[in-house]
Amino acid sequence: LIGGVSIVGAGQVGTMLGMALRSAPPDAGVTKVTLFDRDRAVAEESLALGGGDLIADRIDEALEAEAVILAVPVTQIVKLLDELGSRVPPEVLLMDTGSAKVLVVEAMRRNVPPTVHAIGGHPLVGTERPGPSAAQAELLRGAVFALTPVSEDAEPIERARDLVQAMGARPLVLTAQRHDQTVALTSHVPHLLAFALASVVAAAEQEEGFEPALESSGLAGAVRLAASDPAMVAGFLSANASLVRTALRRLRGEIDRIDSVLDADPSTLEATLVAGPGTTP
Amino acid sequence: LIGGVSIVGAGQVGTMLGMALRSAPPDAGVTKVTLFDRDRAVAEESLALGGGDLIADRIDEALEAEAVILAVPVTQIVKLLDELGSRVPPEVLLMDTGSAKVLVVEAMRRNVPPTVHAIGGHPLVGTERPGPSAAQAELLRGAVFALTPVSEDAEPIERARDLVQAMGARPLVLTAQRHDQTVALTSHVPHLLAFALASVVAAAEQEEGFEPALESSGLAGAVRLAASDPAMVAGFLSANASLVRTALRRLRGEIDRIDSVLDADPSTLEATLVAGPGTTP
Repeated sequence: LIGGVSIVGAGQVGTMLGMALRSAPPDAGVTKVTLFDRDRAVAEESLALGGGDLIADRIDEALEAEAVILAVPVTQIVKLLDELGSRVPPEVLLMDTGSAKVLVVEAMRRNVPPTVHAIGGHPLVGTERPGPSAAQAELLRGAVFALTPVSEDAEPIERARDLVQAMGARPLVLTAQRHDQTVALTSHVPHLLAFALASVVAAAEQEEGFEPALESSGLAGAVRLAASDPAMVAGFLSANASLVRTALRRLRGEIDRIDSVLDADPSTLEATLVAGPGTTP
Repeated sequence: LIGGVSIVGAGQVGTMLGMALRSAPPDAGVTKVTLFDRDRAVAEESLALGGGDLIADRIDEALEAEAVILAVPVTQIVKLLDELGSRVPPEVLLMDTGSAKVLVVEAMRRNVPPTVHAIGGHPLVGTERPGPSAAQAELLRGAVFALTPVSEDAEPIERARDLVQAMGARPLVLTAQRHDQTVALTSHVPHLLAFALASVVAAAEQEEGFEPALESSGLAGAVRLAASDPAMVAGFLSANASLVRTALRRLRGEIDRIDSVLDADPSTLEATLVAGPGTTP
């Protein structure tokens, strides 16, 4: 039985999780969902939308629960763990939702007493827009929710699995390193690209030779991730900088490879587009 | 009154245009839509889906119409114009749908007799999937349809406007140069990026340290354009190579700018993501 769950950070992700937990099957045993946000207005908005049952006035109040989920940008997760990890009561299931896991798991190992059931978490869904009103609990249904263990202890893993399943999501246990290496390429670099492209288009829009009316649905899709909360994106790019850079280097290599055949005949270019890196068309 | 319209190339774009023309308001005066495709099976599929009223057996038969639309990849448009531009009968409204316009307009100037009403065209909509079955006529409704004049003659422009409006789209007249400069950044580079990212992810999927189950909807959106017909993409990238390269250089500069602050503190990174090129946060 899960018991009381506290969510620290009542933005889009926290609200989504809170909504899902509040409609968990009764046999999951979620007794109440407590919200805390350093911006009280955000917690109140989340509460009004159904993200929780009540609001904690202070963060230490939120730590008095069976499970505590840190749903803030990665940088703040690490900071929170450094500041109050040692104060988390024994037996609490402590999880986060950050999209970079090595730094979080290290901060858990560094700060949290071994009696706490700490584990890294990352729901692989969400919307680009920030804030409680962007939360969509139904996105969690059947979605992959990565769990990255802090120790070899089976209990935090089992409890986190139950918590994730109570939300309707699919737990996937893997190492923080493997997680971060994958999402560097599948999520972090795509976010970086979207922000870069959006910036360049915004600059071009100010220029004579550019016709904004030609912007298409293809562009809208390509810059969609740039609508994400910049603080959240800066948080995970920064936390995963080294692996992001490795992934970016691979992508640059592939862009250069295509660039080098732009002037070749179109069939060579076509073969290069399709073939993928390391293949000679 | 528009009269008979022939569509050369009965794929996704040609079929979409044919469907829209066949449901044009009666006062537009579209009498019939003739399809031609060098792959007869594609023309038949398009016909069955409502993309036209009949199929032309030979391309020269298709040229016997009031309006002829070349709806094939840019490279083939230029080749077709070189091969049979001189045989287009006088007074025919000759338009294309390619997403690179300078080369097409030049090929029209070079090959088509001045008695022909030639003009470049580019509907700014479509789906990523190729083939008649991917056509969605409703996408044209209210969509921008770029028209790039070949000469100062007003008649082709007026007739092309009428044709585009009969499809329910919004004509936008601009120079081929301005068109190509804009779409290099808003469409061609995003396509190139999507193919590059899709290739790198496909290669990573074969590796130990990568967990494919972590691929998210964000990634799906970022590589969506890579589902486009590679021949079509190679065609426009190749036709617009020089401006694509210029746009790519700008984007690379912006990626490098973000890369250079990945190790800075997250607030600097955040400011860089948001600020855009040329701004010092």
